[in-house]
Amino acid sequence: MLTYDLEARGGLSLYEYLYRRLRDDILSGALAAGERLPSKRALAEHLRVSVVTVEGAYQQLEAEGYVDARPRRGFFVSPVDRRLPAAEAGPGLPAEEPPRAWRLDLKSGRADPSFFPSALWARLTRQVLSEGGHLAPVPHQGLPELREAIARDLRDFKGMAVSPEQIVVGAGAEYLYLLLAQLLGREAVIALEDPGYPKIRQVYGKWGADCRPIPLDGQGMNLEALYASGATAAHLSPAHHYPTGIVTPIARRQALLRWAEEADGIIIEDDYDSEFRFTGRPIPTLQSIDSRGRVVYMNTFSQTISPSMRVGFMVLPPRLLERCRRELGFYASTVPALEQQVLARFLSGGGSGSWYEQHLSRTRKKYRLRRQKVLERFALCPFAASLTDRGAGLHFLLRLNTEEDDEALRRRAEGLGVRLGFLSEYAAVPNPAYAHTLVVNYAGLDVERLDEAEALLSRVFLTR
Amino acid sequence: MLTYDLEARGGLSLYEYLYRRLRDDILSGALAAGERLPSKRALAEHLRVSVVTVEGAYQQLEAEGYVDARPRRGFFVSPVDRRLPAAEAGPGLPAEEPPRAWRLDLKSGRADPSFFPSALWARLTRQVLSEGGHLAPVPHQGLPELREAIARDLRDFKGMAVSPEQIVVGAGAEYLYLLLAQLLGREAVIALEDPGYPKIRQVYGKWGADCRPIPLDGQGMNLEALYASGATAAHLSPAHHYPTGIVTPIARRQALLRWAEEADGIIIEDDYDSEFRFTGRPIPTLQSIDSRGRVVYMNTFSQTISPSMRVGFMVLPPRLLERCRRELGFYASTVPALEQQVLARFLSGGGSGSWYEQHLSRTRKKYRLRRQKVLERFALCPFAASLTDRGAGLHFLLRLNTEEDDEALRRRAEGLGVRLGFLSEYAAVPNPAYAHTLVVNYAGLDVERLDEAEALLSRVFLTR
Repeated sequence: MLTYDLEARGGLSLYEYLYRRLRDDILSGALAAGERLPSKRALAEHLRVSVVTVEGAYQQLEAEGYVDARPRRGFFVSPVDRRLPAAEAGPGLPAEEPPRAWRLDLKSGRADPSFFPSALWARLTRQVLSEGGHLAPVPHQGLPELREAIARDLRDFKGMAVSPEQIVVGAGAEYLYLLLAQLLGREAVIALEDPGYPKIRQVYGKWGADCRPIPLDGQGMNLEALYASGATAAHLSPAHHYPTGIVTPIARRQALLRWAEEADGIIIEDDYDSEFRFTGRPIPTLQSIDSRGRVVYMNTFSQTISPSMRVGFMVLPPRLLERCRRELGFYASTVPALEQQVLARFLSGGGSGSWYEQHLSRTRKKYRLRRQKVLERFALCPFAASLTDRGAGLHFLLRLNTEEDDEALRRRAEGLGVRLGFLSEYAAVPNPAYAHTLVVNYAGLDVERLDEAEALLSRVFLTR
Repeated sequence: MLTYDLEARGGLSLYEYLYRRLRDDILSGALAAGERLPSKRALAEHLRVSVVTVEGAYQQLEAEGYVDARPRRGFFVSPVDRRLPAAEAGPGLPAEEPPRAWRLDLKSGRADPSFFPSALWARLTRQVLSEGGHLAPVPHQGLPELREAIARDLRDFKGMAVSPEQIVVGAGAEYLYLLLAQLLGREAVIALEDPGYPKIRQVYGKWGADCRPIPLDGQGMNLEALYASGATAAHLSPAHHYPTGIVTPIARRQALLRWAEEADGIIIEDDYDSEFRFTGRPIPTLQSIDSRGRVVYMNTFSQTISPSMRVGFMVLPPRLLERCRRELGFYASTVPALEQQVLARFLSGGGSGSWYEQHLSRTRKKYRLRRQKVLERFALCPFAASLTDRGAGLHFLLRLNTEEDDEALRRRAEGLGVRLGFLSEYAAVPNPAYAHTLVVNYAGLDVERLDEAEALLSRVFLTR
């Protein structure tokens, strides 16, 4: 009869310990395939435990396939591999790169977390939690309340006529790019601004779309190159291009819409930075002057509220909306109900102007001040040849007074704990005209520490 | 000189109104391309407004490209399309299907929201908000605190040796399938359980992977068919297959791992329902008996906490982890920092056993009771031929006492406000053996209303 020292079981329950010992014996071969286990009653008596204990262990072994129960005959050991395949000295885990603490970071355009409307957000969150709104089922396009609030904001503050039914909410810009790629189809040829935001290229590329870098002229994507590209879709940021800062004027916008109509194409209007326009009114979006349903509009709340919130949305024209529901409707929404509810209230509440617009207005003022101080300071630095300030967005270009290679500068900067982004990095097709130009993302810059920033940059650029 | 009736401006500011009138005149052709606008001072004097007002309007027109500023010469009208392309009677918006309120829904396996630990969750959320944890930058694999908490839970309650570095957090199962598809590459041939969960097929199919439906036998995926398929990856749910409920025994698990080694393949272990095992201990995962790094383990908190939370994770073996960081590291995390922080605390806090495990234990008891009552009731219904109860999961199979076609039954049910799911719907390759079998998702069933449910089902199945 099977004998186990039940006193050696440590903190395990009798049933658990018995199960483990039996399993080990099956795996080691001490109990051979086909062998019959003692009856529950007999083993219980032998080990001085209750029948229930043995029964539990046997049932567990059966559920896991170690033994086989035959009616009225008992439990028989199943044929299992005696030994697990020997562990090979496989490759170890690749170490995870810890996030680096930079002394100065001009590359990441992360919004300043101190601008986040913490008290109001906490209040709205408590409201939603107490009302159970965080448990609401979320349709795949997003909660109706949120889509209505977004449509209202687009109408009131961007002059866009958008129905909530056209809106698809998703977990940030890259997830939306990925949905869009699936919507455009594998055969899509996508024109991308060059230079441009690299993640757009990466996502469409991962999807396997044929991406065509299109050079920019002073007004945005070059039309001649766009026509010649054979593209079926063009991804643009006409409000404020990253990283050049180009604002596409109205005539070019109209010409781009004409291209879309003639090429039977789609324009993806990536409006990521348009809320931070510091002079004049926001420029009308391509979506709002598009009468043929050629434009997909997209934006996120990463810059305006917080990148840690992971919420964006896109507005689909009718021709893509139906396809989206038919082909991508099986995807569950990627944004938690809680975030959607709180954001919907933030966009809707607060009276005329909405809490969101009040927040934007405050934030815009703070960034305008920060921008001005940074521009003034950098303009006077000996390493600055010229600044390109377009009065919009959370970055600007700084042409450097140097002939040194961008890569060498970046390496020297990293050695000093300084993270820099150069215009040349954003180009798919290299161009000497892009050299020696820094993309200054000032959103996270502390103006109280501009002396230190200047000193660090001087060490990077003025040391030879 | 340009003359506008500034009294007609309604609620608009002077500057805004002037800008709009000038823009309209440019678009209508009243101001022709090349024409010079009056000087700011002259127009201001003429209209009796301040120079600042005219300046604002001119700058806005310039920013949008309607006019061109030439240094020391003034503002000139730019060439723009006079008319926007005429709005075509395009297709209207396809109507959004409103979610239907079913009288009885046996198809959606949505967890019961009343089981959600609301008070504790609200408390943890308040904590995180007051500490600013919701503003934390989120690395692409997810917050370290959350990954550590998940690894600890997997170790303590599933006997899995997992490093937090191997974990990737994402916005629900389908998003993780999409990431995995990108990781496996376009040339992947993916073996899928048939019948099986349709979204798996849909996501991999969208990605363009070659999917091979593999029939099941009583132990899970049929090995012979798997070997013959030429698959490079197999997506499995060995703990409790949806919808058949099959539990894969240990010998088959070992054989599947051997297949992966011999075929140089990957096994995706989708452990979605494993927490709801009502008899015995949880069955060891494939991941925990895999010594060769062939298994990707994945799970979500949709069933165990709430589907409205949208959080899942996967555990990558070293060979895929490095590739994930290299090729997919550019994707931002899709889960808000707030959800990640709160979930991390829920998984870690509460002393031994953790709040999460205490919650699971309570939830399991409630579902066990509900299951038992539903099984007892359904077993006695005249329309039930037999029940397949595997003591696990939030669904079971009910073979119907009917020869009627599944599709006809579903239609009749829908007419009565009853939503049903049939085993046959889940099959990629039709098989007559699947007919007349209902998949009963009982998680959302109200046991107080079983009389009503039975009456409704009787009307569906016993009416001819």
